[in-house]
Amino acid sequence: MRIGVLGTGSVGQAIATKLISLGHDVKMGSRTATNEKAVAWKERVGQGASVGTFADAAAYGEILVGALSGAGAIDALKSCGGSSLAGKILVDISNPLDFTKGFPPSLSVCNTDSLGEQIQRTFPDLKVVKTLNTVNAALMVDPSRLHGGDHTMVMCGNDVDAKQKVKDILTGWFGWKDIIDLGDISNARGTEMFLPLWVRLYGVLKTPEFSIKVMR
Amino acid sequence: MRIGVLGTGSVGQAIATKLISLGHDVKMGSRTATNEKAVAWKERVGQGASVGTFADAAAYGEILVGALSGAGAIDALKSCGGSSLAGKILVDISNPLDFTKGFPPSLSVCNTDSLGEQIQRTFPDLKVVKTLNTVNAALMVDPSRLHGGDHTMVMCGNDVDAKQKVKDILTGWFGWKDIIDLGDISNARGTEMFLPLWVRLYGVLKTPEFSIKVMR
Repeated sequence: MRIGVLGTGSVGQAIATKLISLGHDVKMGSRTATNEKAVAWKERVGQGASVGTFADAAAYGEILVGALSGAGAIDALKSCGGSSLAGKILVDISNPLDFTKGFPPSLSVCNTDSLGEQIQRTFPDLKVVKTLNTVNAALMVDPSRLHGGDHTMVMCGNDVDAKQKVKDILTGWFGWKDIIDLGDISNARGTEMFLPLWVRLYGVLKTPEFSIKVMR
Repeated sequence: MRIGVLGTGSVGQAIATKLISLGHDVKMGSRTATNEKAVAWKERVGQGASVGTFADAAAYGEILVGALSGAGAIDALKSCGGSSLAGKILVDISNPLDFTKGFPPSLSVCNTDSLGEQIQRTFPDLKVVKTLNTVNAALMVDPSRLHGGDHTMVMCGNDVDAKQKVKDILTGWFGWKDIIDLGDISNARGTEMFLPLWVRLYGVLKTPEFSIKVMR
């Protein structure tokens, strides 16, 4: 499958590298077509990898992965142009973290709105599925690194078919065993507001390689 | 030990009943000294149980448990008078849930402040320890109801000795096995902001008897 990964940070690199290892073709998009981190990634992983602008990656992908910073997510998607987004699934991993006052960060939107909803409202033709934003990059694509994958992922989005496809990717490609669908995209308020607890657990546990298991 | 439980709802009743069953003396406080729910509780549990106003319960308790609604917590504590609070531990279980727009609730304070911090700021002589607010009343006092207690409680507060005493209560009296101390009371932002995820999980799981285990 052809997948457009928007973002060149640790999340974008982890997702893109995993997808290549599974035999997919991935175009990593960034603000410029010659982003150093994207080019270095392409050279490292080889066959199936390509780079371009956000617009190039969005036009290329049958499915899109938004591995964007909270502050840059909407602008990055705007730069893609509506026609390359229409009807496509966006796996939205971004968190609206605000580090302007240091660590731990606060959120730039929360409580009565969320970044997931803002993206869905701004791009109504996009099928936004919010997920993976509650663990670090390494665990996103390989949950078995931690207790054999015995922990929980949450997801939400308005389009039922899109959520099923993303669930198939999470389970079949990445190895997630326990996925809870919270409902429509407004539930991104809940999953994004988990981050203020996540960053504090990270501060105490001194490792980002942790996750929650919903015991029920 | 003499314990003042502030609040007559399901959380106050669960905590107070558990404490009585452990042989402690408990005064349940509410706005009026003859609150129907408090009197019914006293009659049900018998020896060691008494009722009174918030001020009566605060004066009585060597340790205080705040099982108050988010909207009513500060006023309830104000009604106690400063001298009966000074130097005492308050186990703060309250969540600033705002149900004015229905379910799921939003929070009345979050992100750059928290109810735990508001209480600590308003009553600087009180030793506020925020904990237990991330599970339902039955699990608070009997975590073994769920997977033999194999799940995690988080806590925070400014006073190290107070936190140790509360930790001893959680482990020795209630049976919690895994408690993570997040640090000072500002970390209540993290534990209270877990609630928007909790209420959504509750909506999907159709039971409040779930909890998270921090896998690490």
